[in-house]
Amino acid sequence: MTFQICAPDRALAAGLQHRIDNKTKPQGALGRLEPLALQLGLIQQTLTPELRQPHIMVFAGDHGAARAGISAFPQDVTWQMVENFLAGGAAINVFSRQMGLGLTVIDCGVNHEFGTRPGLVNAKLGPGTANYLEQAAMSAEQCEAALARGRELAHALAANGCNVVGFGEMGIGNTAAASLLTHCLIGDAGGADLVTVTGRGTGLDDAGLVRKRELLGQALARGGRPSDPRKALAEYGGFEIAVMAGAMLGAAEKRMTLLIDGFIVTSALLVAQAIAPEILPYCVFAHRSKEPGHTAQLKHFGVDPLMELDLRLGEGTGAALAFPLVQAAANFLNEMASFDSAGVSDKSA
Amino acid sequence: MTFQICAPDRALAAGLQHRIDNKTKPQGALGRLEPLALQLGLIQQTLTPELRQPHIMVFAGDHGAARAGISAFPQDVTWQMVENFLAGGAAINVFSRQMGLGLTVIDCGVNHEFGTRPGLVNAKLGPGTANYLEQAAMSAEQCEAALARGRELAHALAANGCNVVGFGEMGIGNTAAASLLTHCLIGDAGGADLVTVTGRGTGLDDAGLVRKRELLGQALARGGRPSDPRKALAEYGGFEIAVMAGAMLGAAEKRMTLLIDGFIVTSALLVAQAIAPEILPYCVFAHRSKEPGHTAQLKHFGVDPLMELDLRLGEGTGAALAFPLVQAAANFLNEMASFDSAGVSDKSA
Repeated sequence: MTFQICAPDRALAAGLQHRIDNKTKPQGALGRLEPLALQLGLIQQTLTPELRQPHIMVFAGDHGAARAGISAFPQDVTWQMVENFLAGGAAINVFSRQMGLGLTVIDCGVNHEFGTRPGLVNAKLGPGTANYLEQAAMSAEQCEAALARGRELAHALAANGCNVVGFGEMGIGNTAAASLLTHCLIGDAGGADLVTVTGRGTGLDDAGLVRKRELLGQALARGGRPSDPRKALAEYGGFEIAVMAGAMLGAAEKRMTLLIDGFIVTSALLVAQAIAPEILPYCVFAHRSKEPGHTAQLKHFGVDPLMELDLRLGEGTGAALAFPLVQAAANFLNEMASFDSAGVSDKSA
Repeated sequence: MTFQICAPDRALAAGLQHRIDNKTKPQGALGRLEPLALQLGLIQQTLTPELRQPHIMVFAGDHGAARAGISAFPQDVTWQMVENFLAGGAAINVFSRQMGLGLTVIDCGVNHEFGTRPGLVNAKLGPGTANYLEQAAMSAEQCEAALARGRELAHALAANGCNVVGFGEMGIGNTAAASLLTHCLIGDAGGADLVTVTGRGTGLDDAGLVRKRELLGQALARGGRPSDPRKALAEYGGFEIAVMAGAMLGAAEKRMTLLIDGFIVTSALLVAQAIAPEILPYCVFAHRSKEPGHTAQLKHFGVDPLMELDLRLGEGTGAALAFPLVQAAANFLNEMASFDSAGVSDKSA
């Protein structure tokens, strides 16, 4: 499958910058919100960008390697947390409600049968990935199917009028998969050696962290370090990362604004960006996670997220919390008076 | 006038922390929001803090020294921007509307007659302060009256049911007053030598910055470096900083949560905290301003703001933009499920 992403035409940049600079404030005084407003205008190819039907997609999946001791939490927590999402009791529910964001949970391969449930999309590729300590996490066919399903989901969201989507995830063991993907796709030379990019996830102690690194070293000894994004994804998973990468690519095809959350979401973006580099101008980086591998990813993309709140929860919580800043960027551009319209003297007066 | 501020009783801290730790997330995974939730609970002395009728107060005033060339903008911009606030076209209007915050503008001494206007409170202490290059900015009586007026305003807000207030300001020349206050109240030993704490304000160029530092040096040569907060305030002003300091003290008397904006607002807090140190536990620091003096102030208080967005606008914009994070802290504490209630396995399971 190929993805058709066009980088935004920058012809509007000068007009947008002029509009930003003539708002009733010293030039640059709104800091990070100013380039963000410019980015939104370029993504939407308009001087008056609007965020419509903002939505959070949470991709859930299980990891065969989770039973080998790479996480502080038991694998059952994945389906239990999906139930918590569906009941409205998780952090992402709270923050989505507060920020006025729609929320959809996508079962990409949780080791549990949920049946048909409101708010849950069945995109199951299996009852969790295979254990990458023993074999590839998924087949090449599963990987391609996952990308395709993600793309369809994003296109459906766009068809419903949504033009800004935040990405989140749930999957016990998925920081380990993200560490392996980050190591494969950025490499030691990019500052993504295995030790640097492997962190405590949901809260491993020192001994747990040592064991996680050992296990991931064993996985690499078996599966190698593929630099091709589809091969790395198939080798180490997970299903939720693969479907999410497809959704990111599909969202950028539809010129949506992508809100990128933490370490695992950014590992899906690493895959997506390796497939179609034009995706990056559509991405707003919400927050800097406490997971050390996130810093290597952000450096790879040359970006600095909007917030640094020491979050390490996932679920898309950072994307949801950053949404008001993205909305504020659009709002100041659309609603603030200009020096002329307000009769305020400019600096040169 | 004395202010009666009681530091929050910390007896509830253990109960609050237990509640935070039992939410369906790894311990600490919500990062900065977790101590913030604890702080809100302690301020309100409850396990279920609620933010009621959140409000932004913008204090405006003119500075006699503004005509001596300490700002990049002409003094008329103060009243013009007040008109812009009243018309709803400034950044703080946009962000207050977005975040659902009430907004009141307080004329503490703008060099302009506005008449009676909706949304504007007349707390005028004069048509701007005196020029501190020649004499004290205000008399001791004016300073005391300003503190008293601010206190009344905060008490009136509390009487209307508001329990969280963000502070903002407008006044051409007020970064200069803030620099002088910061220098007086923190001192060279605290890292607040005059050069360090004097920045570009609304956008001085290099020559303008040199001139501003020279003028402030002349002011200090005339007025000295009083370490008493009321004396420093009377010497260097401004009226908006004095009324704001009184409002902060009054808000803390009423156990409100105070959202602290940037450099000028924090200089008012320096005054307020020197008068009543118990104010600090009521303060949430919203953002780190680009003005270099702000870092010296934050270091003095030993705090790290929630956001760093390179803002240097004032008006309370940082406080308004940070409000959703404060609301998110209260919301996760009140709305998230616990491990028990959601049937999710904890780490130890």
